[in-house]
Amino acid sequence: MHRLKHTPLHTSQSSQSLQPLAGKKNSTPAMYWFKNLTRFTSPIKHHTKFTPTLFTLQHIHHFTTTTTTTGGGDTVAPSTSGLGPTTKTEKPRVVVLGSGWAGCRLMKGIDTTLYDIVCVSPRNHMVFTPLLASTCVGTLEFRSVAEPIGRIQPAISHEPGSFFFLANCKGVDAKKREVHCQAITDGLQTVAPWDFKISYDKLVIASGAEASTFGINGVKEHAIFLREVHHAQEIRRKLLLNLMLSDVPGVSDEEKRRLLHCVVVGGGPTGVEFSGELSDFIMKDVRQRYSHVKDYIHVTLIEANDILSSFDDRLRIYATNQLIKSGVRLVRGTVKDVQPKYIVLSDGTEVPYGLLVWSTGVGPSSFVRDIDLPKAPGGRIGIDEWLRVPSAPDIFAIGDCSGYLESTGKATLPALAQVAEREGKYLAELLNKIGKAGGGYANSGGDMELGPAFVYKHLGSMATVGSYKALVDLRQSKEAKGLSIVGFTSWFIWRSAYLTRVVSWRNRFYVAVNWLTTLVFGRDISRI
Amino acid sequence: MHRLKHTPLHTSQSSQSLQPLAGKKNSTPAMYWFKNLTRFTSPIKHHTKFTPTLFTLQHIHHFTTTTTTTGGGDTVAPSTSGLGPTTKTEKPRVVVLGSGWAGCRLMKGIDTTLYDIVCVSPRNHMVFTPLLASTCVGTLEFRSVAEPIGRIQPAISHEPGSFFFLANCKGVDAKKREVHCQAITDGLQTVAPWDFKISYDKLVIASGAEASTFGINGVKEHAIFLREVHHAQEIRRKLLLNLMLSDVPGVSDEEKRRLLHCVVVGGGPTGVEFSGELSDFIMKDVRQRYSHVKDYIHVTLIEANDILSSFDDRLRIYATNQLIKSGVRLVRGTVKDVQPKYIVLSDGTEVPYGLLVWSTGVGPSSFVRDIDLPKAPGGRIGIDEWLRVPSAPDIFAIGDCSGYLESTGKATLPALAQVAEREGKYLAELLNKIGKAGGGYANSGGDMELGPAFVYKHLGSMATVGSYKALVDLRQSKEAKGLSIVGFTSWFIWRSAYLTRVVSWRNRFYVAVNWLTTLVFGRDISRI
Repeated sequence: MHRLKHTPLHTSQSSQSLQPLAGKKNSTPAMYWFKNLTRFTSPIKHHTKFTPTLFTLQHIHHFTTTTTTTGGGDTVAPSTSGLGPTTKTEKPRVVVLGSGWAGCRLMKGIDTTLYDIVCVSPRNHMVFTPLLASTCVGTLEFRSVAEPIGRIQPAISHEPGSFFFLANCKGVDAKKREVHCQAITDGLQTVAPWDFKISYDKLVIASGAEASTFGINGVKEHAIFLREVHHAQEIRRKLLLNLMLSDVPGVSDEEKRRLLHCVVVGGGPTGVEFSGELSDFIMKDVRQRYSHVKDYIHVTLIEANDILSSFDDRLRIYATNQLIKSGVRLVRGTVKDVQPKYIVLSDGTEVPYGLLVWSTGVGPSSFVRDIDLPKAPGGRIGIDEWLRVPSAPDIFAIGDCSGYLESTGKATLPALAQVAEREGKYLAELLNKIGKAGGGYANSGGDMELGPAFVYKHLGSMATVGSYKALVDLRQSKEAKGLSIVGFTSWFIWRSAYLTRVVSWRNRFYVAVNWLTTLVFGRDISRI
Repeated sequence: MHRLKHTPLHTSQSSQSLQPLAGKKNSTPAMYWFKNLTRFTSPIKHHTKFTPTLFTLQHIHHFTTTTTTTGGGDTVAPSTSGLGPTTKTEKPRVVVLGSGWAGCRLMKGIDTTLYDIVCVSPRNHMVFTPLLASTCVGTLEFRSVAEPIGRIQPAISHEPGSFFFLANCKGVDAKKREVHCQAITDGLQTVAPWDFKISYDKLVIASGAEASTFGINGVKEHAIFLREVHHAQEIRRKLLLNLMLSDVPGVSDEEKRRLLHCVVVGGGPTGVEFSGELSDFIMKDVRQRYSHVKDYIHVTLIEANDILSSFDDRLRIYATNQLIKSGVRLVRGTVKDVQPKYIVLSDGTEVPYGLLVWSTGVGPSSFVRDIDLPKAPGGRIGIDEWLRVPSAPDIFAIGDCSGYLESTGKATLPALAQVAEREGKYLAELLNKIGKAGGGYANSGGDMELGPAFVYKHLGSMATVGSYKALVDLRQSKEAKGLSIVGFTSWFIWRSAYLTRVVSWRNRFYVAVNWLTTLVFGRDISRI
């Protein structure tokens, strides 16, 4: 323990560096403060008895007062701040809203010698969603499924005209060709959220969709979705807390069962994979690490229709049997109300729960609902076959937020990572083509020949059901014939396929290491 | 997207399993609910067209109502709940308060054939504190420095009489030989915190110390300590947020400099290591990944006296020069006030900051201050040379919460992991010896020969200063002669020593992988 005490300046160097402020050009007081300090930092050589060289901030006192007494708001320029229209001496600017599969695949593919890229998103990383369920129980670490945008498109980090802004997009002005954003301060009290505008040459809306709650009371308050890393973290913390709470003396058996009842609503791939991971965790880790309460923990999967309805019938039988075998209870039902400790099904049944995970699919986000652009059936932003918003030149939309306009005669594509990724790739190539032909700037390139329209070819679906088992459905559509395989081979394909699709080598390496560690040492149960 | 809908029960199996409640013995309604469901889970074999087998919860409706309408409080037994005194048919019970270096080393060493172990702590893992600073900037992952208690002492997980309780200890009744605890619910709304008591045969207080604030206004509100994993997480999130915020259009240069000014108060090993890690991060990762704002980020280390005052003079010169070389500003000063955006030094200087890390050492916690046991100089729990609390039979105290009574004539040992770990090891052996001699139960073993008293032998100190440089001081005390080395060799020793001391093979492996990944790919910058 050392109590901080004031000690006067005592080196010769520091007094030499005390220079008058007058005559300094291009230096704000705060800049001077820093420059002044920087001058102190030459290495010190002592050949006699050592006296550590530390300095006081005394001489910079009066420079810093102005900085520190200003509020959060007035350090920000008026609402005109932002990035204005590009000039012909700059590269044209592609503004990308969102950092999911569609936006990130697009950014990765954009030729940065042709364009500057500005990405606006409330998170600075892409989530490798197919592996998110595995992180909830510690099979994978959170960081292994998050890829920083700066790694996906390094130009964002160092190109003078390319940026990533941690912000929400509040609106699009298609006439002025600008987007209105609000910086995210994440509760930081010293900074007030502020608005800014970005002019675009090309705008790509890839803001994704929102988890559907169907207007059911209590879902947003009490259930946890499984779409972001912080959701997985919340699930993990709650699961481990409930495991520990149920072991504390004085808890009734009934309450233990409630605390350790994990209910998953929605039998799509996410719900099924999470249920499978959870039952793996229970069978392999809880039994060993929480043996006092192992008989109280159960998983129930509630689905109104068929589980994995997009998969081959044979695969669905297999998945159902696998889940049942590993102790997951499959219940057919519809939730009509969610209370803090129980859900109510439409037949009035009350089901107590300790952890409720909601994965019933997605619908249009409020941003998409409010945006003043023509909509496709289902409320998505309407696009043509080249992924353009026909009524608004220079605006494109990809991923879950977009859907074909009725006039195209094409059906809405499913809200899958695969679709989003393919659209991002296609649009990157299209924009590169436009840019090369000199049509990159706003109001140009509209009349050029775009080449073949986007065509989605389904490459197959995969899902794991726990216990080193997975499903791989390689049919092109639900009606088509094709290969569908189950079991360990399939699980191995699932892992390999994901491993090669995880974006960076760093994360591929981490995922492989995580899987190996889980296999050898079991899952991690520390609650941090 | 699939909207959940109610579908009536449609398999023959489920109707067979509808059995009357009457006549069921030993089944609470909730238990019946679960048993009833379990019966559904036999694998289903379909040889014809597949109809996924899902069930309604209709028939269990009336059983669950009682569970779900009770409040959090009434599922908990009255305040008599807890673990009563052990009988001679049980093993004697060692209750350990805390899960730091002292408590965990003790639990690891206890012979579980002689004792049951009950650990009470607000966290379910031990933090490998010397490596915590590395996690703030992504050199190491958080999980790599956290070791679950269930891995340190597996008996906690599966022995019927051994437990880990996520709880705070509220008091010790030395006469009744019981500790009073309160379960931690961590904001979980469905559970009210509840109290319980645990009787002990032997009690080991290893509850640690608290970060010192010296009563300075604003420290607890605005500064972040560096003692727990969640502190490191908070530092990391704030650092990355500030990096992104300062890049948003409309932020003045002055505000950028404030947001990116990282101030560390306290020049002990933690403060120095954190400053070193931070400057490594800035030089290697920020320059590359946040090149727009790289000139605005700075680290200042404020210390009232000498940095690393416990180290050899030669090492201190080296550390000072290394830190200065890597851009850390060393400032001699005392903080007298902490405001949200700036700190005030005792000479009136205001220093703006975006991130403030406080590491000025530790002092007695409120639990230790309030406990009704004789104190050692400095307010720690007073112990004799065998680490016993002499006035309270069967109570021992180890680690930062304890100190030699004046009557022993020995000086208080420093608040170091090394001391705590050695005390834990010694006491485990002592308790095993007592247990083997049949003195494990309460009120017994007090008169037996304990053998040699605890003697602390300092093995040396280590600290890293960034840039693959570290200090190793192998002298026994500040006055003694001995080996002290600096530089890369020293850094290599530092890493190797830590690697072999990280408790489990799993974490050794993870730390090695983290270091390797950071070396190859750089630090991770995703803010999750």
